[in-house]
Amino acid sequence: MARNTIVEALENAPPVTRILAEFVAGHPSRGWGDDVEHAAHRTFINWLGCAIGAANHACVDAALAAVNELEPSEQATVLGRTKQVDIASAALLNGISSHTFDYDDTHLKTIIHPGGPVASAVFALAEKTGASGRALVDAMVLGVDVSCRIGNMIYPDHYDRGWHITGSTGMLGAAAACARLLDLDTAKTTMALGIAASQPVGLREQFGTMSKPLHPGAAARAGLMAALAARHGFTASPRAIEAPRGFAQVISAKHDWSEITDGLGRRFEIAFNTFKPFACGIVIHPSIDGCIRLRDQYGLRPDDIERVELRVHGLVLELTGKRSPRNGLEGKFSVYHSCAAGIAFGAAGEAEYADAVVNRPDIVALREKVTVVVDDTLDEACADVTIVCRDGRRCHEHVDHAIGSLENPMTDTLLEAKFDALVDPVLGPAKAQWLKQSSWSLAGQPDIRDMARHARP
Amino acid sequence: MARNTIVEALENAPPVTRILAEFVAGHPSRGWGDDVEHAAHRTFINWLGCAIGAANHACVDAALAAVNELEPSEQATVLGRTKQVDIASAALLNGISSHTFDYDDTHLKTIIHPGGPVASAVFALAEKTGASGRALVDAMVLGVDVSCRIGNMIYPDHYDRGWHITGSTGMLGAAAACARLLDLDTAKTTMALGIAASQPVGLREQFGTMSKPLHPGAAARAGLMAALAARHGFTASPRAIEAPRGFAQVISAKHDWSEITDGLGRRFEIAFNTFKPFACGIVIHPSIDGCIRLRDQYGLRPDDIERVELRVHGLVLELTGKRSPRNGLEGKFSVYHSCAAGIAFGAAGEAEYADAVVNRPDIVALREKVTVVVDDTLDEACADVTIVCRDGRRCHEHVDHAIGSLENPMTDTLLEAKFDALVDPVLGPAKAQWLKQSSWSLAGQPDIRDMARHARP
Repeated sequence: MARNTIVEALENAPPVTRILAEFVAGHPSRGWGDDVEHAAHRTFINWLGCAIGAANHACVDAALAAVNELEPSEQATVLGRTKQVDIASAALLNGISSHTFDYDDTHLKTIIHPGGPVASAVFALAEKTGASGRALVDAMVLGVDVSCRIGNMIYPDHYDRGWHITGSTGMLGAAAACARLLDLDTAKTTMALGIAASQPVGLREQFGTMSKPLHPGAAARAGLMAALAARHGFTASPRAIEAPRGFAQVISAKHDWSEITDGLGRRFEIAFNTFKPFACGIVIHPSIDGCIRLRDQYGLRPDDIERVELRVHGLVLELTGKRSPRNGLEGKFSVYHSCAAGIAFGAAGEAEYADAVVNRPDIVALREKVTVVVDDTLDEACADVTIVCRDGRRCHEHVDHAIGSLENPMTDTLLEAKFDALVDPVLGPAKAQWLKQSSWSLAGQPDIRDMARHARP
Repeated sequence: MARNTIVEALENAPPVTRILAEFVAGHPSRGWGDDVEHAAHRTFINWLGCAIGAANHACVDAALAAVNELEPSEQATVLGRTKQVDIASAALLNGISSHTFDYDDTHLKTIIHPGGPVASAVFALAEKTGASGRALVDAMVLGVDVSCRIGNMIYPDHYDRGWHITGSTGMLGAAAACARLLDLDTAKTTMALGIAASQPVGLREQFGTMSKPLHPGAAARAGLMAALAARHGFTASPRAIEAPRGFAQVISAKHDWSEITDGLGRRFEIAFNTFKPFACGIVIHPSIDGCIRLRDQYGLRPDDIERVELRVHGLVLELTGKRSPRNGLEGKFSVYHSCAAGIAFGAAGEAEYADAVVNRPDIVALREKVTVVVDDTLDEACADVTIVCRDGRRCHEHVDHAIGSLENPMTDTLLEAKFDALVDPVLGPAKAQWLKQSSWSLAGQPDIRDMARHARP
């Protein structure tokens, strides 16, 4: 499309900034079905577990050390740590930790991890205001809807050109959620979205560095501050998203406005959120799932294994083909280690990617038995797994929909187990148990401060 | 260029992130000529005056109210106000106030206002560390060089697509300056630039709203925090600027790497910084200058005037053609009011754009005598002004290079007068005088905290 045609199209864009603001400010509390309400609780528990689980990672240490230079007031909880910081810094730090393990939620249509920016911002704010769980859930559902609808509007072009879409849409979701929690009217919510629109965060080049989890953190912070600024009369363009020199044109060549307006208030994107069963790139999940299914079905143990034969799409080797990973991080990019972990432990959570586990001789021996055949006729979401046993058995499993996909979602029980594995080592089982139960009844919590207190060691 | 060709070109890009980091970390203190050193002092005094002058604007009030919700520690001065806040918030607020009047500095080749993001970040940090003026000047020169070289690399495409380039390069300049002040080594400075690269700020759609001055403020804040995070071991891609999914490709289709590498350490962009003599869009400056020259040359007074005839490029009317401005802000977009102010007061500073002045009957009468003829054979930087007097005199002036341009720069005396007019009403003449003198001897100041103290009422 010629430049002029684009500008003309944008000048005729629907006023989506105001449309979203009206929706966020005006949609009734719990104005959705039970599926959406349940998805919000699942999103919350998964976010909380991931953030607490990574609380003591070097990445959070470094960011917290920088925040400490500001001598922050003690307004809000850094999840999983004793230190409290101002609400904007808490949003930043919890957003960082929630994404540090690459274990968080995924809105598959856009590859947005929507929980981090939105929940981190609104939880910190709720802790300060003493908001109810009901208000928090409402804000989360609406905030995630804003992030993901914006994502739907600009994906894939926006992602293809190199934006880490979680951070570059997350500040809008966080602003929406915080505006809702602050009970801002449509006019001020429009300003909050407008202020946030100037601050997209995130380059894909940062993948593999601490700046990747910085993105949802910085987005959470920017969105929270945008809502606070709007509350106090700070202004922005009321067409900041859709205008010819606004957010959408500046960061994407694709703008499908109908993704924002169609079914707004009836279809909620949080219902399409998925949760990772394994603490690694989603492309290896079908292979790991296949290995675990065979292990459980046939009662396989590492000593039984002669050979593991995988048939997968080429993308799997391209992204996760590390034959001899030297540490946990490299293990996450090794389909070989990941399958070995699945067979040996029946799991591939954060614990199975510890440096020591990746280097354990029996696990190294097992991963060396894994062979991969590329077959691009298979869908990327599939894996064909055959385990050949020493006793000659050939155990075969074809995985069409891995656990954690929309078609085969993580059960609540699996989500709980994931939560426990993440939170127990940081807070101990008593607090983990309390937080887990409270998370399932989040909408009924009278005051978020109780939960925040329990999220500190 | 086809997509693949672009990616290939980017994969062969020089390692500019590291090159800039080496330069920032390693360039000797005061490793430049007197012209550069003097330009740095002029940049500082102009920044300080603008930031103090706008200290009590509604825009700063609103942003400060949002910051106050964080109950910030009292680490650094909000220029022109009694309140102190943490250094990151001070960087934000001073960056906002420095750009609020649209009266700050301009790097004409890129239309970057380089002082705001860089000086606001490094001044706040220097106040906390008790840095010397020498260290501050070094950091400013290097930080401005980074912002403007990055700007040169991507301008005009980056600006054309809608980025407010001051905020979307400023975080890199601020990170560089703060890394220098913190004495970070090349490796950590590389990380600081990398972390900042993920956080470009600013949409042109925001022009006319408070979010415009937010951009240099948010950039200052992001750059300062990037340097602090890098200091504490936070990581980013060492190729965050030039990699195929890095900053430059994501936000611009033009990448002239030589703009970064050519003459690095020998040519300093701060030497090309200019300062606005008039508190309005630069496109009207030649017309105002012409009016003031005729006023002074012929001793003209409003009562003498029969008619003012302007011949200017069409852009002047397009951008500043408001015939009947109703308030100060609209006055800034009125070539009619601006010329009337020039004739009546011999000035067009912030005071001449007060609401009351714009509505004064004698000034309204005078502006109605201004006629504009569009002549696109004239350069945009020119104006042809004829004042026809009641006594029949025709006074004519052709302005090729308006005051404030590179060819006809603001003298130090004019910069001082501008500073006084901005600072006197906020801090009183005694402090204004002290700050002005101290700014000229900035490089010799033993401790920036003295200056910060004097910048509070």
